[in-house]
Amino acid sequence: MTKPVLTPLAQSLPASVPFVGPEAAERASGKPFIARLGANENTFGPSPRAISAMQKAASEVWMYGDPESFELRNALAAHHGIAPENIMVGEGIDTLLGVLVRLYVGQGDAVVTSDGAYPTFNYHVAGFGGELHKVPYVDDHEDPASLIVKAREVEAKLIYIANPDNPMGTWHSADVINQMIADIPDGSLLVLDEAYIEMAPEGTAPEMQVDNPNLIRMRTFSKAYGMAGARVGYAIGAAEVIDAFNKVRNHFGMCRISQAGALAALKNSDWLAHVQSEIITARETIKQIAADNGLTTIPSATNFVAIDCGQDGAFARRVLAALLEDGIFARMPFVAPQDRCIRVSCGTPEQMDAFKKALPVALQKRGATAW
Amino acid sequence: MTKPVLTPLAQSLPASVPFVGPEAAERASGKPFIARLGANENTFGPSPRAISAMQKAASEVWMYGDPESFELRNALAAHHGIAPENIMVGEGIDTLLGVLVRLYVGQGDAVVTSDGAYPTFNYHVAGFGGELHKVPYVDDHEDPASLIVKAREVEAKLIYIANPDNPMGTWHSADVINQMIADIPDGSLLVLDEAYIEMAPEGTAPEMQVDNPNLIRMRTFSKAYGMAGARVGYAIGAAEVIDAFNKVRNHFGMCRISQAGALAALKNSDWLAHVQSEIITARETIKQIAADNGLTTIPSATNFVAIDCGQDGAFARRVLAALLEDGIFARMPFVAPQDRCIRVSCGTPEQMDAFKKALPVALQKRGATAW
Repeated sequence: MTKPVLTPLAQSLPASVPFVGPEAAERASGKPFIARLGANENTFGPSPRAISAMQKAASEVWMYGDPESFELRNALAAHHGIAPENIMVGEGIDTLLGVLVRLYVGQGDAVVTSDGAYPTFNYHVAGFGGELHKVPYVDDHEDPASLIVKAREVEAKLIYIANPDNPMGTWHSADVINQMIADIPDGSLLVLDEAYIEMAPEGTAPEMQVDNPNLIRMRTFSKAYGMAGARVGYAIGAAEVIDAFNKVRNHFGMCRISQAGALAALKNSDWLAHVQSEIITARETIKQIAADNGLTTIPSATNFVAIDCGQDGAFARRVLAALLEDGIFARMPFVAPQDRCIRVSCGTPEQMDAFKKALPVALQKRGATAW
Repeated sequence: MTKPVLTPLAQSLPASVPFVGPEAAERASGKPFIARLGANENTFGPSPRAISAMQKAASEVWMYGDPESFELRNALAAHHGIAPENIMVGEGIDTLLGVLVRLYVGQGDAVVTSDGAYPTFNYHVAGFGGELHKVPYVDDHEDPASLIVKAREVEAKLIYIANPDNPMGTWHSADVINQMIADIPDGSLLVLDEAYIEMAPEGTAPEMQVDNPNLIRMRTFSKAYGMAGARVGYAIGAAEVIDAFNKVRNHFGMCRISQAGALAALKNSDWLAHVQSEIITARETIKQIAADNGLTTIPSATNFVAIDCGQDGAFARRVLAALLEDGIFARMPFVAPQDRCIRVSCGTPEQMDAFKKALPVALQKRGATAW
């Protein structure tokens, strides 16, 4: 009996995962984390009103979610002062990026991103046979000008930039991003991933530009709104670009509970302000903990801080492993020289205390001996 | 400025949805349904323990779901007496079907299904450029023998059959399905969609056959477990077929709340038994309501019943519209001659009473006059 055969493209792809899950690390170590600070999650959690809304919706989960996410989409439109036709709600930015790549990137089509930027975007590009072209970070920042030059050179279908950036936490002002938007090459679509935008200073987000069919922006409830596990993201763009999602998206893919939670979270701006304040405090705490250990941090506009461990990637990796032995889960950038850093999420005072205790031990354990 | 251009495949696809959502119908009519009996949902709802588990998980939703769905996958493996390597958990069968088609169906590849069977599968096949070949129902049943003949003729990559069937509710015995499995042509993969299997009589589901790389089965928490809005399905197959999902699936796509709910639901077999019993009762109620109006029903192994309205599709459509005016939401098969029927979900006694009152009115309103 002849087995079924994968498509040539699928055959060429490894069975891989952009990130190993925190739970897998816990299972490997045999004990739960003391502080889960590695998955770019928001430990301050969702609005209590969002929790209530989700708890209420749990008993209604026998119904499919509204495939149009009508209420949420309209609330988001009002929130941003744009039309519902400019918004597509999806199962997190990861899913929206996958659909976007599927719509625009055929086999061999060029895509531009930064070397060391979001791996899940790269995973989708590879998954649809696109050719990735990467430009390096400059001073731990993504480099808009080089991204544009490269995009022009390779005639990129998509250009990806995250502002603020993951994994470094750095950011560009709206002026810089607006210049990048003005410079988008003919035929390219700029994917502006603003997953962390609610944590960034005023003046980071450009104004809405929903008449521009060469720009699409990604937002999420996973970060500032503290609902990573709910899988709610949304794209903002020109109506024709947004409507194209309806060609291939999973129309009934949204969790009904998550839709209810996101709607309640959006309406609770006080909680968002509270989280924003906690994050600013925790960033300073991480900076101080690093300084107490003779280390510097990269300024961050996100809910994580990259600590420069002052040596190479191998050293940073040893520090991470030592932290994990003490129950502290963190991660690190994949690419040199950014991989000299470890990336630590903002946490509650208890979590920050646990990290404060563990970091000097980890540095001492791993500093002198080969691992 | 030149706009970004969709891939040729994406350009060729309409912006469409396999089903318009019930909420859209409610918004159009300006009033909520009295009985939501059209979306193949289980109005008896999820296990109270599943609801509790989801309510508890809501406050932990700041964490991403485990990308391996480790606990749920292991519990499912134990439940079915197979290995975790034979199970892939995903965001509902819709998503799993999309990934499966993506893995196996390239542009122009042949796929076989029944004319009038699950439209979302067809949507995915079209979305990846596959060529659909359809065989007709026979006596309101999918026709395994013809599906196999057609698959052999066109050298199908995938063969789709739902057992029990949607939209008709009919089913084949495990013996018939086992014969179909034995007859799978070289190189074809049989997709056995068993979304409704927990509602079918003993002897409908074949034994597990996880050594067979030409067979993949789809199961879900959306139907008997009453959790459609949670988006939890799973595929059962040979380890190599299951592992291929890891090449392209959205690893962090599962809602953490839904994972918790599905795990609790699986463990609460008493509630499943309760729902199974309610469904058997409601099927009989629908049959009786139809009989009281001079109509017959198609025997069903699902939580819906197709009522033969005795005329053509246009008439059935008028009956549906009239029911909707009275707040009863139902649907109908898309293809003749099955579209002589309307499809009504099993409901609570209150919902069945509402339907009982509305049906004769709808038949009378629509029977004599053109609509």
